[in-house]
Amino acid sequence: MPSSTVRSMRGLHLTADLYQCRCEPRWLSDGLALAGWARQAIQAAGLDVVGETVSAGPGGVSAALLLPHSHVTLHTWPRQRGITIDVSLAGDAGDMPAKARGLMDALVGRFAPEWTEQRSLDRGSDVT
Amino acid sequence: MPSSTVRSMRGLHLTADLYQCRCEPRWLSDGLALAGWARQAIQAAGLDVVGETVSAGPGGVSAALLLPHSHVTLHTWPRQRGITIDVSLAGDAGDMPAKARGLMDALVGRFAPEWTEQRSLDRGSDVT
Repeated sequence: MPSSTVRSMRGLHLTADLYQCRCEPRWLSDGLALAGWARQAIQAAGLDVVGETVSAGPGGVSAALLLPHSHVTLHTWPRQRGITIDVSLAGDAGDMPAKARGLMDALVGRFAPEWTEQRSLDRGSDVT
Repeated sequence: MPSSTVRSMRGLHLTADLYQCRCEPRWLSDGLALAGWARQAIQAAGLDVVGETVSAGPGGVSAALLLPHSHVTLHTWPRQRGITIDVSLAGDAGDMPAKARGLMDALVGRFAPEWTEQRSLDRGSDVT
């Protein structure tokens, strides 16, 4: 992990709960396809993936991708065509919030939900 | 992933940002020790771990542990003696909120922070 990239504990944590997704069903059930696509989306946002774990079964897919001091998680419910997504990015770079929001938009867009519930949390402070 | 265990998209997502941790320094820098202990804490709460990824370096440790439709993440900043933790548990079992809170309390307690900022979010709805 490049320690120089994330000195600050500050971060932005975005959550999204997606309903009635109209994407191809495989995006909700194929763990390797989903994680591989998420990894590409993270890298396309200019961010590094430093770890990954995926679990898939008939009930859905769960995936977690680690970035330095940061993570992206996805959980799918194929029967309900639902997904919950987290994008938690740390750092005090000026473009970090825009990167987090752009990445979340890309992830949400993949699944074409009829509606979503999204929230934004500030994480961490710089305490000395 | 045992699909029968998590039919509901409902869940409870707890966040905790920890500052001035007074625990042994290794808990903030030893990735395998941290992840192994977190796995044991999750299992002690009666929950299954179905995936795990860890990244450690001089800047800190990041770990994500997957549970069915759920996750636990930890990010450490050894220099600041700070940690951010997420416990996101899905399911409509009556004891799920208590399990989530008990697990978060166990995780936070390990690090003996001088102070914390903690939040609770309801995740997901049951849409038919």
